[in-house]
Amino acid sequence: MKTLVVISHPEISESGSQQFLLSSIPESESVKVHHLEGVYPDSQIDVAAEQELLKQFDRILFQFPFYWYSSPPLLKQWQDEVLTYGFAYGKNGHALSGKEFGLVLSVGIKESEYQAGGKEVFSINELTKPFQAVAVKTGMTYLKPFVIYQFPYMTEEQKMTLLIDYQQAVTREADDSLATREKWIIQELEKTPEETLAPGDELLMQHAVDLIEENRDTIDGLKMVLDEMNS
Amino acid sequence: MKTLVVISHPEISESGSQQFLLSSIPESESVKVHHLEGVYPDSQIDVAAEQELLKQFDRILFQFPFYWYSSPPLLKQWQDEVLTYGFAYGKNGHALSGKEFGLVLSVGIKESEYQAGGKEVFSINELTKPFQAVAVKTGMTYLKPFVIYQFPYMTEEQKMTLLIDYQQAVTREADDSLATREKWIIQELEKTPEETLAPGDELLMQHAVDLIEENRDTIDGLKMVLDEMNS
Repeated sequence: MKTLVVISHPEISESGSQQFLLSSIPESESVKVHHLEGVYPDSQIDVAAEQELLKQFDRILFQFPFYWYSSPPLLKQWQDEVLTYGFAYGKNGHALSGKEFGLVLSVGIKESEYQAGGKEVFSINELTKPFQAVAVKTGMTYLKPFVIYQFPYMTEEQKMTLLIDYQQAVTREADDSLATREKWIIQELEKTPEETLAPGDELLMQHAVDLIEENRDTIDGLKMVLDEMNS
Repeated sequence: MKTLVVISHPEISESGSQQFLLSSIPESESVKVHHLEGVYPDSQIDVAAEQELLKQFDRILFQFPFYWYSSPPLLKQWQDEVLTYGFAYGKNGHALSGKEFGLVLSVGIKESEYQAGGKEVFSINELTKPFQAVAVKTGMTYLKPFVIYQFPYMTEEQKMTLLIDYQQAVTREADDSLATREKWIIQELEKTPEETLAPGDELLMQHAVDLIEENRDTIDGLKMVLDEMNS
């Protein structure tokens, strides 16, 4: 699976969360980071090049700070100019159909405010309806959003967990089953030489152990059921 | 009541609906039209000037084509740059508090598609949640949206009704009561010299007559109830 991460952030070098995410993205042929303000500092988008780029990926992520409950202006301009009739929708507009589409949002307010009774009143699910509608219109499968709340207040441990979760959001199949999570962890572990274990990798190892234990519990449970049926 | 109509449209001269709306806006000291792409062709927004402008109005309308279920990029940039902490929200950020805020949307798809089972799946009410959240955050009262569906397919009569409805959306108190509608119509009629009656004004006259008749029916109904109580 190949993933295109379309990032929009007007001041990405000053954003702690964006810098952290950028440093977390596993370098590989299957993941491309595409920072719009970096590629188009004059806001002159090369529509044909963008459309060609989109065709090469299976999963498209929009990653941005959730300013005023939507994307920065350049990502909206990108949508308006690149997702044209005949390409992304309408007659013969099937270039994105069947791909996966997801959001990676950095949010400055804590999660519990995004509900009735909270200061923000509406949920992230409600506020991202326009993007869900983009998925509908283009025939893409909408993924669960990956939302980072109040990055600056995160502990180091929370950031390490975020790193693993983000890597999964970028590269793992959109399927929370035990089998898929196990497959992903094994792939990642196989890529890691043991002698170079950094703190993040250690946590990865711990995740692997947890999963294997969970797996073992599941198998043991199934065996007990089978034993009872046979007795 | 003073209304600021903030319009965002990258190609306003080519838009039939926007040109129609522009020609429909009653010229007066109490209504100002502010076309962002016209004022800021280089996208360099004068934040201080915009904030001063906003303070002078009681009702703020965002008028734009509903591309990809949101505003054009320049209006989003305007939101991000003008609606700052300390001005529009946050500590001492009460400049917009108590004002009215509404949307005037032009939409290319017919109304019935904006529901579950329709092609667009989500309702306008769902898709405009980010703007409703702006009203919440800034302390503004959110008005019912004014949505124009498929302007190019409207008949002349529909366009004349649209004209009246739009003028009301811009200038009338946000109150559907008979008294408010009657007051608005009487104000408009008083401004119109009879000898200059254009087709739109004639329809306005007809609306006035309809309202007066409705008023009469209501009064008659109340009188009947009173008569029965007294008999």
